[in-house]
Amino acid sequence: MTTARLNVDGARLTRRLDELGRIGAIEGTTGCARLALTDEDRDGRDLVRTWMEDLGLEISIDGIGNVVATTPHDSGRAPVMTGSHIDTVGTGGRYDGNLGVLAGLEVIETVLAAGIDLPRPLAVGWFTDEEGARFPPDMLGSLVYVGGMALEPALEIVDRDGISVGEELERIGYRGVAPTPGLVPHAFVELHIEQGPVLEDEDITIGVVEGVQGISWTELMLTGQSCHAGTTPMRLRHDPGFVAADITAFVRQLTQEFGGAQVATVGSITLTPNLVNVVPSQAVMTVDLRNTDDDTLQQAETRFRGHVAQVAEVEGVGVETRTLARFEPVTFDSRVIDIVEARAVGRGLSSKRMPSGAGHDAQMFARICPTAMIFTKSVGGISHNVNEFTEPDDLEAGANVLLDVMLELATREF
Amino acid sequence: MTTARLNVDGARLTRRLDELGRIGAIEGTTGCARLALTDEDRDGRDLVRTWMEDLGLEISIDGIGNVVATTPHDSGRAPVMTGSHIDTVGTGGRYDGNLGVLAGLEVIETVLAAGIDLPRPLAVGWFTDEEGARFPPDMLGSLVYVGGMALEPALEIVDRDGISVGEELERIGYRGVAPTPGLVPHAFVELHIEQGPVLEDEDITIGVVEGVQGISWTELMLTGQSCHAGTTPMRLRHDPGFVAADITAFVRQLTQEFGGAQVATVGSITLTPNLVNVVPSQAVMTVDLRNTDDDTLQQAETRFRGHVAQVAEVEGVGVETRTLARFEPVTFDSRVIDIVEARAVGRGLSSKRMPSGAGHDAQMFARICPTAMIFTKSVGGISHNVNEFTEPDDLEAGANVLLDVMLELATREF
Repeated sequence: MTTARLNVDGARLTRRLDELGRIGAIEGTTGCARLALTDEDRDGRDLVRTWMEDLGLEISIDGIGNVVATTPHDSGRAPVMTGSHIDTVGTGGRYDGNLGVLAGLEVIETVLAAGIDLPRPLAVGWFTDEEGARFPPDMLGSLVYVGGMALEPALEIVDRDGISVGEELERIGYRGVAPTPGLVPHAFVELHIEQGPVLEDEDITIGVVEGVQGISWTELMLTGQSCHAGTTPMRLRHDPGFVAADITAFVRQLTQEFGGAQVATVGSITLTPNLVNVVPSQAVMTVDLRNTDDDTLQQAETRFRGHVAQVAEVEGVGVETRTLARFEPVTFDSRVIDIVEARAVGRGLSSKRMPSGAGHDAQMFARICPTAMIFTKSVGGISHNVNEFTEPDDLEAGANVLLDVMLELATREF
Repeated sequence: MTTARLNVDGARLTRRLDELGRIGAIEGTTGCARLALTDEDRDGRDLVRTWMEDLGLEISIDGIGNVVATTPHDSGRAPVMTGSHIDTVGTGGRYDGNLGVLAGLEVIETVLAAGIDLPRPLAVGWFTDEEGARFPPDMLGSLVYVGGMALEPALEIVDRDGISVGEELERIGYRGVAPTPGLVPHAFVELHIEQGPVLEDEDITIGVVEGVQGISWTELMLTGQSCHAGTTPMRLRHDPGFVAADITAFVRQLTQEFGGAQVATVGSITLTPNLVNVVPSQAVMTVDLRNTDDDTLQQAETRFRGHVAQVAEVEGVGVETRTLARFEPVTFDSRVIDIVEARAVGRGLSSKRMPSGAGHDAQMFARICPTAMIFTKSVGGISHNVNEFTEPDDLEAGANVLLDVMLELATREF
């Protein structure tokens, strides 16, 4: 093996990211908009597909429009797969998703150019509608790939204008014939920007991603009694705004009590009538709880619900609760995690084991094969924003770790 | 004196309230809309003026459209005055203000019918634009009456369409010639609905109003750092929504610490972008602090400001503060307050000394003569609402106390 001496071409990787980012570019910014299955998404797909074809890869397109390119190989063995997505949110950057796909392409080009003979093929894919910004849910393509959703209902999902996934796939020419669920890879590893501030804050190059946080979203509708802010004594108030504030303070306190992995966010509070001198009649708020450990997340949910019931009762405010989302945490494969960490160390790069706070295609593959992820820095922690940026050196470092990990996975049996 | 045997005609009072309430009536409700100096306000004025003329009262109209009707009297002495307003908010009831004017008329009719010879005249007035719903500030007419604002600038105040008070007074025929500041009354007492829930809650008939709360309104613009609710650890957050919640909880705690007279309301919180999975970049909130004692109100303001500075610094959130309003408390005359209380007791009615949480014309008269107020129950504490309601028995009880107080004030020197 000559893996220690192999390196990706960082300049080529950056050039391809820039070229893909010009499709759907948002004028006056470095951001772009390629919502899933739009003309812009099609143009982006066509460009990346051309690059795949130029390398002589075998390309398969499945019924949901996932595209997987594999190195030709006589063994018939399952490939070591990498990949991500090339759709974006409405005001996205050029790194989220795109990096994982183009770095995978870069790894394969590097390996092919070096003429290395591996015991397994390498594959790189992009998965349809990861963002879910046009067609809910997010990670739709990888969900269908791993058999988490049948193809037919997925094709019937419609956007806000009533246009279906199936119609759009036909229209842009990406409704393929490869079966779903798809081929089970030997292992899966995804490179992605962190989309958070931790690596930058701690000046660390490589995030060794151990799993994806579980998510619990709750909407609370708190109903009290609107009244005059001057004429109503405190003891006669039933103020849902106060209850919302108390809950916001409580979930913050919960994160301090539970420690590191527990995060809690009240991102939305809407008071009615929202006037300076009127005690609100209603407060609608959301609570976002996340943890990498499902037992702890359940404890947080229990404590949260108990506090809501208690404070609402004391204040005489009614509560209606709606679960907006609930996903269990995903734990990646410890063997693949160890390899990612060892390969970062092998490159002399600083690294840190960490969870992912956002969802990624890799969490779907974790259902069917040994999987982990590699994070690189996001400047300012900014993502889903035209100002999303990662330094070229960090892109290259991430791609080199991906290269080393894929090479090792290709020779490793599980 | 035969005051103990005199009673108002409660049915006549209710009938007049209903009749006045039909002018500007809001269809399908018992509410009405007679915004200051509109055609509806003019029609209401014309009706009440007719009733005044029918009693043979001497009517004066001043330059800001305040109308005062006085019993003919040879003494040349200053009258005992009562009064309130007959303009309403856009979705008002038929009691707010109207009760004080029509109960005053009822008192005078009762006294005249009884042929009682008093040492002073009695007067009842209505004061222009008390609500301030069309022309700010509120209590405009009584403010000009007592010399708190000169006539000329008051006439130049415009509504949202740029139409001035002066133009509208001319148009509806209520720009009079009586001078402002007006005649200083011997004493002033105003009957008004409570517009709050205290009397109903404690099952008390008469509120003996000792003064009007001071008001302190602050707007806070809190600026933090928007970030992803999943990928951003708690320690790296600068969450203005959390700061807003903490301040809301703090001012509630302050009311518990300061006790009875201190009220605090956060009626408005607006988060940006207000999404479930994004830590807000900005929170704009209002804080309404009120107390009957200005020293205590100042202490509350100081504690509030100190807490805002502290919690914002700890969270790393910027604060911009804007004072939206600041009025000192008004203390009514203890001698008039005592008379109100004694006359309620004399009628065998339950009573309670209390502050007014809202502003009233009486607070302007408190600047120039001995003044107090009488409150009657508001069902459900509801006011500035088409569902505003006070039971006929309570209206009559309030008017009878007003009668007794005016008779006593007429024989009392200060």
